[in-house]
Amino acid sequence: MSDILRRGRLSKSPGEEMRAYTSSMDADKWIFEADVYIDMAHTLMLQEQGIISKDDCSQILSGLLQIKEEGMETLDFSYEDIHISLESRLIDLIGEDAGGRMHSGRSRNDEVATCIRFALRSELLSILEDLMKLETALTALSSDHIYTLMPGFTHLQHAQPTTFAHHLAAHADAIERDIGRLISAYGRVNICPLGSAAFASTGFPIDRYVTAARLGFSKPMTNSMDAVSSRDFLIECAAAFSNIMINLSRMAEELILWSTPEFNFAELDDTYASTSSIMPQKKNPDTAELMRGKSGTVVGSLAALVTICKGLPLSYNRDLQEATPHIIKSAHVTGASVRMLTGIMETLTIHEDVMKTQSAAGFTTATELADTLVREAGIPFRTAHRIIGTLSKTAAVPSLKDIDAVSYDLLGFKLSDKGLTEEGVSGALDPMSNVERRRVVGGPSPAQMRDDLADKKRRLSALQKEIWDMDLAVEKALENLTEEVKTKI
Amino acid sequence: MSDILRRGRLSKSPGEEMRAYTSSMDADKWIFEADVYIDMAHTLMLQEQGIISKDDCSQILSGLLQIKEEGMETLDFSYEDIHISLESRLIDLIGEDAGGRMHSGRSRNDEVATCIRFALRSELLSILEDLMKLETALTALSSDHIYTLMPGFTHLQHAQPTTFAHHLAAHADAIERDIGRLISAYGRVNICPLGSAAFASTGFPIDRYVTAARLGFSKPMTNSMDAVSSRDFLIECAAAFSNIMINLSRMAEELILWSTPEFNFAELDDTYASTSSIMPQKKNPDTAELMRGKSGTVVGSLAALVTICKGLPLSYNRDLQEATPHIIKSAHVTGASVRMLTGIMETLTIHEDVMKTQSAAGFTTATELADTLVREAGIPFRTAHRIIGTLSKTAAVPSLKDIDAVSYDLLGFKLSDKGLTEEGVSGALDPMSNVERRRVVGGPSPAQMRDDLADKKRRLSALQKEIWDMDLAVEKALENLTEEVKTKI
Amino acid sequence: MSDILRRGRLSKSPGEEMRAYTSSMDADKWIFEADVYIDMAHTLMLQEQGIISKDDCSQILSGLLQIKEEGMETLDFSYEDIHISLESRLIDLIGEDAGGRMHSGRSRNDEVATCIRFALRSELLSILEDLMKLETALTALSSDHIYTLMPGFTHLQHAQPTTFAHHLAAHADAIERDIGRLISAYGRVNICPLGSAAFASTGFPIDRYVTAARLGFSKPMTNSMDAVSSRDFLIECAAAFSNIMINLSRMAEELILWSTPEFNFAELDDTYASTSSIMPQKKNPDTAELMRGKSGTVVGSLAALVTICKGLPLSYNRDLQEATPHIIKSAHVTGASVRMLTGIMETLTIHEDVMKTQSAAGFTTATELADTLVREAGIPFRTAHRIIGTLSKTAAVPSLKDIDAVSYDLLGFKLSDKGLTEEGVSGALDPMSNVERRRVVGGPSPAQMRDDLADKKRRLSALQKEIWDMDLAVEKALENLTEEVKTKI
Amino acid sequence: MSDILRRGRLSKSPGEEMRAYTSSMDADKWIFEADVYIDMAHTLMLQEQGIISKDDCSQILSGLLQIKEEGMETLDFSYEDIHISLESRLIDLIGEDAGGRMHSGRSRNDEVATCIRFALRSELLSILEDLMKLETALTALSSDHIYTLMPGFTHLQHAQPTTFAHHLAAHADAIERDIGRLISAYGRVNICPLGSAAFASTGFPIDRYVTAARLGFSKPMTNSMDAVSSRDFLIECAAAFSNIMINLSRMAEELILWSTPEFNFAELDDTYASTSSIMPQKKNPDTAELMRGKSGTVVGSLAALVTICKGLPLSYNRDLQEATPHIIKSAHVTGASVRMLTGIMETLTIHEDVMKTQSAAGFTTATELADTLVREAGIPFRTAHRIIGTLSKTAAVPSLKDIDAVSYDLLGFKLSDKGLTEEGVSGALDPMSNVERRRVVGGPSPAQMRDDLADKKRRLSALQKEIWDMDLAVEKALENLTEEVKTKI
Repeated sequence: MSDILRRGRLSKSPGEEMRAYTSSMDADKWIFEADVYIDMAHTLMLQEQGIISKDDCSQILSGLLQIKEEGMETLDFSYEDIHISLESRLIDLIGEDAGGRMHSGRSRNDEVATCIRFALRSELLSILEDLMKLETALTALSSDHIYTLMPGFTHLQHAQPTTFAHHLAAHADAIERDIGRLISAYGRVNICPLGSAAFASTGFPIDRYVTAARLGFSKPMTNSMDAVSSRDFLIECAAAFSNIMINLSRMAEELILWSTPEFNFAELDDTYASTSSIMPQKKNPDTAELMRGKSGTVVGSLAALVTICKGLPLSYNRDLQEATPHIIKSAHVTGASVRMLTGIMETLTIHEDVMKTQSAAGFTTATELADTLVREAGIPFRTAHRIIGTLSKTAAVPSLKDIDAVSYDLLGFKLSDKGLTEEGVSGALDPMSNVERRRVVGGPSPAQMRDDLADKKRRLSALQKEIWDMDLAVEKALENLTEEVKTKI
Repeated sequence: MSDILRRGRLSKSPGEEMRAYTSSMDADKWIFEADVYIDMAHTLMLQEQGIISKDDCSQILSGLLQIKEEGMETLDFSYEDIHISLESRLIDLIGEDAGGRMHSGRSRNDEVATCIRFALRSELLSILEDLMKLETALTALSSDHIYTLMPGFTHLQHAQPTTFAHHLAAHADAIERDIGRLISAYGRVNICPLGSAAFASTGFPIDRYVTAARLGFSKPMTNSMDAVSSRDFLIECAAAFSNIMINLSRMAEELILWSTPEFNFAELDDTYASTSSIMPQKKNPDTAELMRGKSGTVVGSLAALVTICKGLPLSYNRDLQEATPHIIKSAHVTGASVRMLTGIMETLTIHEDVMKTQSAAGFTTATELADTLVREAGIPFRTAHRIIGTLSKTAAVPSLKDIDAVSYDLLGFKLSDKGLTEEGVSGALDPMSNVERRRVVGGPSPAQMRDDLADKKRRLSALQKEIWDMDLAVEKALENLTEEVKTKI
Repeated sequence: MSDILRRGRLSKSPGEEMRAYTSSMDADKWIFEADVYIDMAHTLMLQEQGIISKDDCSQILSGLLQIKEEGMETLDFSYEDIHISLESRLIDLIGEDAGGRMHSGRSRNDEVATCIRFALRSELLSILEDLMKLETALTALSSDHIYTLMPGFTHLQHAQPTTFAHHLAAHADAIERDIGRLISAYGRVNICPLGSAAFASTGFPIDRYVTAARLGFSKPMTNSMDAVSSRDFLIECAAAFSNIMINLSRMAEELILWSTPEFNFAELDDTYASTSSIMPQKKNPDTAELMRGKSGTVVGSLAALVTICKGLPLSYNRDLQEATPHIIKSAHVTGASVRMLTGIMETLTIHEDVMKTQSAAGFTTATELADTLVREAGIPFRTAHRIIGTLSKTAAVPSLKDIDAVSYDLLGFKLSDKGLTEEGVSGALDPMSNVERRRVVGGPSPAQMRDDLADKKRRLSALQKEIWDMDLAVEKALENLTEEVKTKI
Repeated sequence: MSDILRRGRLSKSPGEEMRAYTSSMDADKWIFEADVYIDMAHTLMLQEQGIISKDDCSQILSGLLQIKEEGMETLDFSYEDIHISLESRLIDLIGEDAGGRMHSGRSRNDEVATCIRFALRSELLSILEDLMKLETALTALSSDHIYTLMPGFTHLQHAQPTTFAHHLAAHADAIERDIGRLISAYGRVNICPLGSAAFASTGFPIDRYVTAARLGFSKPMTNSMDAVSSRDFLIECAAAFSNIMINLSRMAEELILWSTPEFNFAELDDTYASTSSIMPQKKNPDTAELMRGKSGTVVGSLAALVTICKGLPLSYNRDLQEATPHIIKSAHVTGASVRMLTGIMETLTIHEDVMKTQSAAGFTTATELADTLVREAGIPFRTAHRIIGTLSKTAAVPSLKDIDAVSYDLLGFKLSDKGLTEEGVSGALDPMSNVERRRVVGGPSPAQMRDDLADKKRRLSALQKEIWDMDLAVEKALENLTEEVKTKI
């Protein structure tokens, strides 16, 4: 191998361990396709701007097409990165006289920054699709369970009755914000550093708008020094992925809890469970556990990215190479986890009877009872809170008589004398009637849930359209680019 | 003290250490003002919805006004949090019969979530203002230096000549993205959890739209379980702060480098420097060093927040209390750092002569020389790269003769025979002419910088208006709220 | 104020915000006492080495004693750090002619590094004591419960029966490793940087062995540049604290689970629980939740420390100032959490009946049954695993007949024909007999637990002695130092 | 494939994506060899304890030997982990009747914990060897440069003159502590969980001491529940690796600084440098930059591990599977980085002339001059500091006359009247004489450095012996095990 980069300036060859230490070829598989598209767009522009001849352009493009078709496997992996390996392969195919002209007016610094944005853009679009499916699944499941009572928890204690629909919709709303964050990030990812060259742009009369548009980017990334040395978009995406995974870890935790014999609220489909090598009776919610654990992996990627970028002077530093694998890893783990959770939710067995029984256990109706005291007997909430708190130490479910006894003791009068009725008390103690009264925006009453879910479905449709439009814009640009390349050969 | 919360359910009092361990009073100073406003908005709504009487409403509001005026200092700090301390103070002032009615239809869970969003909203607006000032300062300084040559660096090696304007504009563009991220986050922060109560909303006929609007929020946060248990907005903000601080750490690193006797590119104003307790001649860029270090503090807050939220089941868990101090800390450190850097930049002494001298050192013009070989002699870029690479091993600044010798050796012909001229070579070797040729979008040529800076100023104006509008909307809502309160007493 | 540091080199005064940004006075409260001791030890040595006169020494020491007695409150907090504030106060008290000599042969760089090690050493000793108490409490509780059956979990599923003693001893063993890590770290903390001055030591003929010994350190920290610029000991301690907190977060998680009505294995004492502002019946395990959350705070400190130190060139950089508050915070949170957990464990109510009932639920005896098939019928374990796995799909607790049916189906013969007996089967299905058979090192059988706990108590005694010796060595050194100071005045 | 695990309990097969999500086969390559050794040691013990027959034992061992020789490649990668894949292969080779007996008295939970400790132990020994080589290289280079003057830095400003030997020895001392930390960690890693089975040990009469010893572990890890569910040793090792990498990042930062044309203190050998794809004159210190960046990768692994372990209840949870790849990654990156830095240091070109020239630039001798004022004129240090500070604002290198002028101005008398001499002043201003006076432990004086380096070499020899002994103990145990296996076939 005659190294087209090092043959000039450097006299010694690096050893094998050094090569392994500095090579990015492994991570570069992720950007191979991006790199070929970028080479094509750049080459077309070079020719249009008169920087290379039509003939050289044609040769380069046909070489690139061949490389694209052969795939990355035919490249020489002993090079330090994909860019130089690909250019070297091109020169092998069409000679240095034409092939050696492709790298005019750019550098690996802008090339790799463009590749990362190109590939990450695809990941974002794919994760957005996955999140839409998860939110749709959660919303559908929620719609099926607006009458399914369950205990609502605070501090993992039974607090008040709610419905499974309400609980699932909470998670769905969180996922909706995750979608919003990825869309925000997308706008800052989908801009084009190409043409920034090493960092100072170039003296060749290139047209950065043309290459940006051909590659489906919204615009060129202005300052050329910023364009090659910024990785804040990686931190932003890894943080958005971390938020997704933290949300998933919370659902995973619940799935694991619900699968215990103690809770027994739900059971994962066998597809998503495993057994034990020694305890033959076991059915374990392994997928949920791994999902919870993988949140740590994505958080680790975020920590790595932030640490790598800290304190780096401008412009490009080789440290940045070390950043790329972390965004790849975190994107892939996040996407896979979202898809896995969608599958789990779509196949989950719900034990409605258990949930219903538990919805009233632990005096979950105490708050509504206190509110009833306020409404019927006209005492302040804080006083009602005290009466019910005192009752809850002894009697699990108090009767009107119990209430009167305590109120007499604490206040000097019976609440039944102030208007508290048997009907009021028994109504407050019934979980479903309890839930039905919670008819304010975002509350669990079935009527309210129906309204809120209808709203959500409308929002989901709008989001889906927005994401499809983003997707389509990229797809069309790349199709057009491929067509143009073919006509220029 | 008769604890209005514990007197009911719990028989033993916590010890001093337990109190210190569980109290949030220290962090709650941050939300005192928010809490009073929220109490006011909630009370007004309770009365409008017929949940409390006009008279009770009037008493509560006058109590709240008094508490607001007295300030947090008069509260009893032995309570576990500000909400209960404030409610307890209210009851002391106006009695339980009226004061005990304020907490109807809500819980501390929605109250604290609303407080955090209210207070964080202020921090975001304040940091946005700070960032605008920093970007404005960087842009102004950049405008002054479009002809100030300096060496551009890659790998901290001299790479190509550029201008100080170009370098500063790179940082300014990064700050502009930071502004964009905070604005995106603001939209997800400025929504209102109030009325979600413990997590299941309430049976009282409250109006969540009214309280949200009165407090300056864009809308209620829909699902009541999600509303009390989500802290993803803290992670998003801490991540945005981390991105800001990482950007600042990069500028800090450069300021420290530039202040060394070896670089000597710039000198911090005495205001921002310190000396040594033992070495009397020292002038140290301490502020920049602390800024670089404080990036670690903000990153630590992000790591803490993510770890705290991982694996929590719905809905509210007390772990969330531990999250708040981290967002306060990271917001304050970020704002102060941005303001500090603005001051440093506004008072920085630039050593233009040193920068200019260094702009040509290290054969920074090699790329332009290679490009000239391509343009004049028509050889491929990769071949030109090889020739100049070979020359750079021996001769610092090659002549046409040197180039010919190497090209003859490598290619079998002299480039002067193919069109390379003395003028071409000497033009390429002059740093200013070098920079002037880089006239593509985002490049350092003075003409281009003028255009790009003009664009940036237009964008800054639009951003400033957007931020002011956000700010104004909140301010007006709170003014109106205060007015309403006064009319109801 | 005439600033004794800045009055020479720097002409402008820093503004208020700059002062707040750069001041370490808040964190320096932690090292006030350390600083006075260090000043004393240094001053004594200066006099012994003939660097200052007896009279100056005497004046300085009496000034220092006065400052120590008055406490930190009398110092001027507008200085940038405690060292300069303290020296300034000394000069106020005894004049510059004597007071101005104390700082000979040292710098703030070695002074602060020594202070941090001095103060951190105390924290380590204190946390070690706290951990010893926790491990002792866990061990004592474990000793009480060697016959208390409970279900052992894997994947949070019932797996096999075990005892509460066995479960608690698992946590105690983890704490024992935490103690080991802190002792390892202590050896790397308790060395003395004093005398390294700014980083190059000093031309004064100081004796570093003498000051190190007087301050209770094991030896001087050799290389003077390393001594002022290393903070690896902070990272090591914060990592050890993180490991402790992660272990605590696991116990906290279990306490929260056990407190649910679904599990109902245990109940926290009222002292460690809280109630709700709205749901009067609630009793929440808040302390455990906060402990779980505080693990995030300590992890955040570790992340901060690592990020701060990354990429710093030698020797001292001001970034290091930002490191100190993180170690203080993480030490305090860790110590308080350990003490809190000890209290929780010592007052925990255990529901032995519930645990016992659950110990057999979910066919937890399946493994022992499979093992019995192996032992009595001589089939391979993997085959037995298959038979029991098949049975567990249908019958909760299989009879010999059920087993025979499946084995005939799968293997073509009945296991009762190969030696499997009714007694064997019923013995395997009894939880206590199950547990008693697990008599290997580290297993739950009561006999084994008794042996293992006896071993543990022996190890604890040895550890306690080691820690007391460490503690005593420091205490004695400081007592001696105080005595010497008094004799020199 | 008939899955030997799932065929019993679970009815559905997992899909391809689920398999990829849950499989650990990729990371398990790291423990293949460990797993075979563990199987061998376990099998030998089973036979000795009469749990399996001699004949079964012999068959299993010969199967294992064949699997070991064939290597991991012949295993079926569609299984979820290496343990089950290996056992399945064994059964294929020798039949279920013998092969199905190997898993008696253990579980995958203890098996994998033992595998991780076994493989990590090798990594620790290997990194310890690498660190010894690095420290030896730093010490050797230091020995060559005890007379090489260089400017010592604080705040990256010239502070005082020192020697390159002193600077390098600072790094060497930090590495020595890193070695100490790994040795401490080794003691907590090298203990044996085998025999803990799923978490409750086993009813089979196994001997845990025998398997532990045969596998080279120091002892069994006592509590069987702790043994399968603890991963604190991973956190401890990743933290120790992070400390190493942070230390390396600091050296890397310096190498990058020193390679700049501004500093020009040193030049990396071509082997460790790269050039640019566009700027042919560039020689970049890429290896140092990547090393600095890779510190972020290792820090990310630590963050991931901590997050994964947070809040997990006992005993084994599948989350733990996600931990293993992070320790593998961080160990490999750390080892490679240490080796890379050793190579860089061994081939580094030092520009002694530049360092020497710079050692006096920036009035680095000011501290010694102030000390001379103290010694000769008897004024307090703080007063001398003020005089020199004032001088440093105007005159770069002051004469006796300059000093007199300032002292007269500030104090009312000339220092030459108090004993300050021309010789004293000129001596203080000479860098080498300056350094020679710093003859206290850890100081840069050549005589002192010689002593300190001699001490260090003695310590290194002792450490080397300790590490070799650790290494040898493991090696011998595994050799003996292999021998025993061969005799039993």
